[in-house]
Amino acid sequence: MISVVILGSGNVAQHLIRALKDASGIAVKMAYARTPQSLKHLLPDENITDDLSKLPEADIYIISVSDDAIHDVSTSLPFSGRLVVHTSGTKSIEELDAKNRRGVFYPLQTFSKSREIDYSQIPLCLEAEENDMKILEAVASAISKNHYHMDSQKRKALHVAAVFVSNFVNHMYVAGESVVSDHDIPFEVLKPLILETAQKVQSMEPAQAQTGPSIRNDQGTIAAHKDFLQNSRFAELYEILTKSIQNEQKL
Amino acid sequence: MISVVILGSGNVAQHLIRALKDASGIAVKMAYARTPQSLKHLLPDENITDDLSKLPEADIYIISVSDDAIHDVSTSLPFSGRLVVHTSGTKSIEELDAKNRRGVFYPLQTFSKSREIDYSQIPLCLEAEENDMKILEAVASAISKNHYHMDSQKRKALHVAAVFVSNFVNHMYVAGESVVSDHDIPFEVLKPLILETAQKVQSMEPAQAQTGPSIRNDQGTIAAHKDFLQNSRFAELYEILTKSIQNEQKL
Repeated sequence: MISVVILGSGNVAQHLIRALKDASGIAVKMAYARTPQSLKHLLPDENITDDLSKLPEADIYIISVSDDAIHDVSTSLPFSGRLVVHTSGTKSIEELDAKNRRGVFYPLQTFSKSREIDYSQIPLCLEAEENDMKILEAVASAISKNHYHMDSQKRKALHVAAVFVSNFVNHMYVAGESVVSDHDIPFEVLKPLILETAQKVQSMEPAQAQTGPSIRNDQGTIAAHKDFLQNSRFAELYEILTKSIQNEQKL
Repeated sequence: MISVVILGSGNVAQHLIRALKDASGIAVKMAYARTPQSLKHLLPDENITDDLSKLPEADIYIISVSDDAIHDVSTSLPFSGRLVVHTSGTKSIEELDAKNRRGVFYPLQTFSKSREIDYSQIPLCLEAEENDMKILEAVASAISKNHYHMDSQKRKALHVAAVFVSNFVNHMYVAGESVVSDHDIPFEVLKPLILETAQKVQSMEPAQAQTGPSIRNDQGTIAAHKDFLQNSRFAELYEILTKSIQNEQKL
């Protein structure tokens, strides 16, 4: 049995607590939150604390707080020599205070509090100093089918890529929604296309999956679309993304 | 039984032929292709022709050719007074020669020849003059669960939105793939995130689903990412999309 303490109460922390408390071979001994209230729906009262001095001994401490707070929380821990990891995609392993053994346990996914998620599908990116990789792998395997060893530089690249394929993609959905709702068309109509576009690249390379007027260099349609978007706040994006697709094709 | 003739042999035409020949209540009487060879895997030889004068009488003629060829093909038809539709998202119903009864049968999806598709999930956008909507609806219902009445102006808006949520989204996948492969990280790692991002907006509004450093205005991460992308061909896109997300939030 691997004993775990989680520090944090945001989206990532809550999804992690939910996954770990159901995992076999894992015991969530305690969660730390500045407002214990925020975790009451996940854990019994005696397993939540707002006092760092009350943290029990555990095999691994997972700090899942905002990037800027990781350093301070790790420095405030009243013990040393134990395994402490953070869950950030951007921060290096050195963000953690060196008085403890350090690691990273980064789940690559987009989390919303209101949405259930199948943790077994989430890739976990692991980094550890020397002998601690085995514990990280054991915790990762207990909740997910996929984990990868990734040093801080690779993890940073992955996070940049994630911004493109998730945050920027969602912004494209926002733009599409805005265009259809301006014309009283239900967003529903776009949903199958959104899903199929994502499903396509599960088995095809993105460059091969590219379709549409930009890649065909269909000047008539591109001009009609620009004309249509005149004065829209998405006109500039249309222009720049069309050019970017065409530049990419030339490579 | 509704009899159908299809004109065209591209991605859209082929997927349509496949769906229609399996649909109950529909008879695909003939397909027209300049190179009959290209449809041999879909239909028996006697049902393919490269000669417009050999087209049999049918309840509906579906012209599924490139946008720029629609007008010419419709003008070349050696009959009048019959129902002729095109499958384009951008062209108006008036692109068709007025000697026949006109309509539009636009499937909103991204088609690739190599990829099987579940036609029942594809929204079909229908437009007809006067009394022909019933035939269009019957054909649509035979192959898909969803159809919408949409005039040429709405269809144009929908097509612009589709470029954002599909073509531009795929370009974001291309960018993500490029960033990870530059760092020897398998594209596999991004696939669950890509799927979840698309699945999220099946039940949430895109604006509510927005996450990431741009919407949080996490200046540290944004600066680190820009620094990371220096000299990359995606640096400018990162900058512009980040600004666009932040502008959107102010609305």
